[in-house]
Amino acid sequence: MFKVKKIDLDIGHNYVVALTRDDMVELSLNGGDRVKVINKKNNKHIVCVLDVVNGNSGVKSGTIGVFDKVFEKLELVENQTIDIAPSEKPSSIEYLKQKIEGKRLGLKEFTAIIQDIIDNKFSQIETTFFVTVCSLDTLDDDETIALTQAMVDCGKILDFTNGDKSKIVVDKHCIGGLAGNRTTMIVTPIVAAAGLIMPKTSSRAITSPAGTADTMEILTNVEISTSEMFEQVKKIGACVVWGGAVDLSPADDIIINVEHPLEIDCEGQMIASVLSKKKSAGSTHVLIDIPVGPTAKVKTHKEAERLGHRFTKVGRAIGLNIKVIVTDGIQPIGSGIGPLYEAEDVLKVLKNDENCDKTLRNKSVMMAGIIFDMAGITKSGQGESLAEDILTSGRAYDKMNEIIDSQGRKVIPSYGKYSYVVTAPTSGIIKSINNQFVSKTAFTLGAPKDNGAGLILHKKLHDFVKEGEELFTIYSNSEMKLKYAKAFIYDNEIYYI
Amino acid sequence: MFKVKKIDLDIGHNYVVALTRDDMVELSLNGGDRVKVINKKNNKHIVCVLDVVNGNSGVKSGTIGVFDKVFEKLELVENQTIDIAPSEKPSSIEYLKQKIEGKRLGLKEFTAIIQDIIDNKFSQIETTFFVTVCSLDTLDDDETIALTQAMVDCGKILDFTNGDKSKIVVDKHCIGGLAGNRTTMIVTPIVAAAGLIMPKTSSRAITSPAGTADTMEILTNVEISTSEMFEQVKKIGACVVWGGAVDLSPADDIIINVEHPLEIDCEGQMIASVLSKKKSAGSTHVLIDIPVGPTAKVKTHKEAERLGHRFTKVGRAIGLNIKVIVTDGIQPIGSGIGPLYEAEDVLKVLKNDENCDKTLRNKSVMMAGIIFDMAGITKSGQGESLAEDILTSGRAYDKMNEIIDSQGRKVIPSYGKYSYVVTAPTSGIIKSINNQFVSKTAFTLGAPKDNGAGLILHKKLHDFVKEGEELFTIYSNSEMKLKYAKAFIYDNEIYYI
Repeated sequence: MFKVKKIDLDIGHNYVVALTRDDMVELSLNGGDRVKVINKKNNKHIVCVLDVVNGNSGVKSGTIGVFDKVFEKLELVENQTIDIAPSEKPSSIEYLKQKIEGKRLGLKEFTAIIQDIIDNKFSQIETTFFVTVCSLDTLDDDETIALTQAMVDCGKILDFTNGDKSKIVVDKHCIGGLAGNRTTMIVTPIVAAAGLIMPKTSSRAITSPAGTADTMEILTNVEISTSEMFEQVKKIGACVVWGGAVDLSPADDIIINVEHPLEIDCEGQMIASVLSKKKSAGSTHVLIDIPVGPTAKVKTHKEAERLGHRFTKVGRAIGLNIKVIVTDGIQPIGSGIGPLYEAEDVLKVLKNDENCDKTLRNKSVMMAGIIFDMAGITKSGQGESLAEDILTSGRAYDKMNEIIDSQGRKVIPSYGKYSYVVTAPTSGIIKSINNQFVSKTAFTLGAPKDNGAGLILHKKLHDFVKEGEELFTIYSNSEMKLKYAKAFIYDNEIYYI
Repeated sequence: MFKVKKIDLDIGHNYVVALTRDDMVELSLNGGDRVKVINKKNNKHIVCVLDVVNGNSGVKSGTIGVFDKVFEKLELVENQTIDIAPSEKPSSIEYLKQKIEGKRLGLKEFTAIIQDIIDNKFSQIETTFFVTVCSLDTLDDDETIALTQAMVDCGKILDFTNGDKSKIVVDKHCIGGLAGNRTTMIVTPIVAAAGLIMPKTSSRAITSPAGTADTMEILTNVEISTSEMFEQVKKIGACVVWGGAVDLSPADDIIINVEHPLEIDCEGQMIASVLSKKKSAGSTHVLIDIPVGPTAKVKTHKEAERLGHRFTKVGRAIGLNIKVIVTDGIQPIGSGIGPLYEAEDVLKVLKNDENCDKTLRNKSVMMAGIIFDMAGITKSGQGESLAEDILTSGRAYDKMNEIIDSQGRKVIPSYGKYSYVVTAPTSGIIKSINNQFVSKTAFTLGAPKDNGAGLILHKKLHDFVKEGEELFTIYSNSEMKLKYAKAFIYDNEIYYI
């Protein structure tokens, strides 16, 4: 029997209670052990992970520190007494240990693990263990398929076809690392204008200056409920919303939470994460874009082809019609970097503005064309000209306006108050542009949070510049951040002439 | 600028502050990122790991949750404001990522990692990452040597020789998993009686019913300060104390904290942990005991020899005179299990009681003899007879009494109030005894905490028993625990007849 001391902190993804080391020794318990915590007043109980505290802080011997989540779940009141009893750890932990010993895991094992993660049953140590085990001993194709299927099986699946299995639902995904790559906001209205269903969920930036959801948010609301999303897609065939609000893959957030601080990448987990979300979003046809370039995420064509092959194999195994394209990732796609400037690029393309970024336009038309071919809307190879027609005719722009209005149009913000023009230190041909430095600069300027922060590139790869000619302009609403960005630019060669 | 909200909880091994998700997005920060937390009032600052909290609990937007350790280190007061600034993660994290990519780590890398762990710079996620990386991609011999040396270099080294490098300091270590294996408490007084220095630090039980420190604690105080330990060893040549009070390997606790809940064993880490502690304790000559048996930690002779070879290689590389013996681990060594009953076994051997446990006596004499041979006290092969002489003459018992008195003699407690005799269900030869079940029974009875809890084995391997004859007696001071233990015995075959 312990007296409850509430710890007013909602932190992490699992249920935690804390005891002093002395009390734990008394009960033959150790940190990381599981205990069943029982509120006798209402007979509610829950299995929690034990944390050790030093008895000289808030939790003293005889009291139990109860974190917010547990406190609410058990409907406790401060200072009441509760019982604890030893409990076993989730059996799926055993599978991880088997994997360390060289066993390959299958659907049953991954489903148990993913379900336990979703149910908050894994401690942070255990989730880290899972992520690290998967990262180190790279998941083979069969395991990746099993993990992907497990992630689909443990979540809900959206159905935008009203049960009509003949209906096609399309999606696209780009394997990150490329600044200004906002094709989604052009491809989606093009394919939707041709009558295809494209309920696009996109991400916000984590370490980049803008995700598609951030850029779309310049123009319209991206946090809509699942029912609003269904209604809109039924009416106009498409949406571009933030995936986080839809919660398609509940395990994913928890896993990313661990992966992010370690900056590790597990290819199998990445493939599983991408494809399980597509499947859960009800997609039937999926186009995967892998940009290749020295400063993109994937550095070589060989590597891109190997990765593409894995995507195709796993995608087919879980019943997707999937196609992978390897594209040019040698420089930023658009001219604007940062949500506002990328949104401007998108609108210029959709409006057929003659000053629009041609790379962004051509890539989007090509991708929409491939989707038409995949979906059988056009004969093989003829999709691109249909896409071109739809874009040129203004039908894609009209569709984009429908989407924007349906989600809740916003007033486009102004450019950042502070700006600075970076000029060429010498004359010559631009030999390379460092995508990572471009992204870092935009990030330093305050993107994506400051929606006036970003860059406009005036010159692109292979352009000729004269000494003193404008290379790019940086914008921010913070004078301090502009100063930081200038220092970063001074230290790092973004354009190599 | 954030307002300080103290989180009155001293938990984990690193410095943590918590912000709401909204505030983190505002500052382009993520969970797991490092921030420098600055108290402008006294110019103190400290790098902390960021945790995310949901803003509906104690930490609201604009406030920063500051855990106890940070609060005290920065000498903060509730509700004052503090500044934060982005900070880099420890560079040693980079080495772990290199290891994932297949690179072997050396002394420089391991030293950086261990030092960062000791300095509380690793988050729990990162320490788990380290442990898992080491467990999965088993450390090779060179890496194990580097890790061991790094653990030595990052801690203090005790010197019991007053700088006299010709002096010998001996130690022994048993690779766990065997009930009643209390040779340390016999070997130490024997070798000290011969004039060798043996400053023995032992562990408490974590998942077993008794560690040597727990058993010694029945007879005397085991938590003495390092200076008391030095004084005692100088005077009488030996001690048997709890290693935790001496803090020889500060990284070890933190690592074990992560290993324990995962129940994983990294052989390289285990070797590094054992040998770095010996080296840090100033030992020059070390005897390693690897018991082998179907229910011991090491199951086969082949496995024991492989492991022994690694211990020898690593031990020599860090400058230890090391010897490994593979011993019989087929059944518990003594007759008593649990601190009180094991201490009784030890005293019977030291007092030359004719009813003493012969296995325990013989093994201890053999080990002390090997130490004499290693130390050059005797010619090779003649150590055992010297050990036998010292034990038989009562000099070992006298030395043990010196140790007990010096540390602070205790009154030996009584047997557990409740007891139960388990009898043979059938007549026959005892074919096997399950060490793990024996340990589990003692643990269930309340050992090591309840010092009246434990077992006395009346029969051992290959003994003949008649149906109904006494096999063993269980004791506890808790009627409930005795009942639990009876249920466990009923369900599990401890003696196989």
